[in-house]
Amino acid sequence: MTGQKATNITWHDHTVTREERCAQRGHKGAILWFTGLSGAGKSTLANAVEGALYERGCQTYVLDGDNVRHGLNKDLGFSPEDRHENIRRIGEVAHLFADAGLIALTAFISPYVADRRMVRDMCTEDRFVEIYCHCSLAICERRDPKGLYKKARAGEIKEFTGIDAPYEEPPQPELTIETGTTSVKESATEVIRYLEREGILPAP
Amino acid sequence: MTGQKATNITWHDHTVTREERCAQRGHKGAILWFTGLSGAGKSTLANAVEGALYERGCQTYVLDGDNVRHGLNKDLGFSPEDRHENIRRIGEVAHLFADAGLIALTAFISPYVADRRMVRDMCTEDRFVEIYCHCSLAICERRDPKGLYKKARAGEIKEFTGIDAPYEEPPQPELTIETGTTSVKESATEVIRYLEREGILPAP
Repeated sequence: MTGQKATNITWHDHTVTREERCAQRGHKGAILWFTGLSGAGKSTLANAVEGALYERGCQTYVLDGDNVRHGLNKDLGFSPEDRHENIRRIGEVAHLFADAGLIALTAFISPYVADRRMVRDMCTEDRFVEIYCHCSLAICERRDPKGLYKKARAGEIKEFTGIDAPYEEPPQPELTIETGTTSVKESATEVIRYLEREGILPAP
Repeated sequence: MTGQKATNITWHDHTVTREERCAQRGHKGAILWFTGLSGAGKSTLANAVEGALYERGCQTYVLDGDNVRHGLNKDLGFSPEDRHENIRRIGEVAHLFADAGLIALTAFISPYVADRRMVRDMCTEDRFVEIYCHCSLAICERRDPKGLYKKARAGEIKEFTGIDAPYEEPPQPELTIETGTTSVKESATEVIRYLEREGILPAP
């Protein structure tokens, strides 16, 4: 019986290639990099886009604070050096996922132009799609879903982006979504349309 | 035309779950952790197993020195502390891949019991399969595919596992493969059979 099963195993002399993985998955590997202020709606939008991609049978994974800050990057704080290392590692992991043929969606403030460019420069074979979730500080602060702005204004959190740490706007993002004034559904549709136009997704 | 396409998008109110991803992929997420001396055949076996899994339509990804040491972990050396951090990060990334529903295969010497246990302990929901690639130092040194043993014996490389740094054998690995005396094909078949027996792979 064991011998019989063995006939189902085919032996490769070569490593499974990136091309084979993409063919298996029916779409290209890519990184969708959502950037913007805390409260701008990055995670909400990334999850909505992932839901739409899942329905189309795409292989996806969302990297966000929940699964990275408490694991891979739990040794890092919020100093400029640690923020840089945080983004570097997230970029490398997103790159591995894209190399595996998945569409990686990342939802991090990632406030510095240079750090986002570093990740873009890693992507020689992957598509890197920078999606600026644009939302005024006033709206973000009004939303304040985690109560962080309140704490930052009270001085309980230091170096909070938008309050006492800078957010550097993307000079040339692939997409800018007005997440302060556009519904999640409309915003996600914009992203999906872009992926179709660019051939990252096959037309539906 | 844009409006027409929009009907193909379904909006989730919830995040795509681990269960949905596994259902989509037809198998569970898991980590196959290959450990053993340099030259024991970890990468060769991991790639052979990946080839067999690919033929069965499984979603896989191999993490090894080629795609990790020059990227995510390029800031790390070979001191005990850096080896520990190297394995910690690899474990976290393998865990993310397993959470994404993939079968992650890792091929690193990973010489310390405590480090491998740390990764095992991360896997509360994933299956962690420790595969000891057992091969005598004499055979590894005779193979010496990268000429590293020669350099270590000449003192050009310090802290080389098996020469002047320890390899701690796994006390209770899920599988021990005699990679010094067993063909790659037989070895990979043993791994596949294990995954079938344990229900990580559906029976063929």
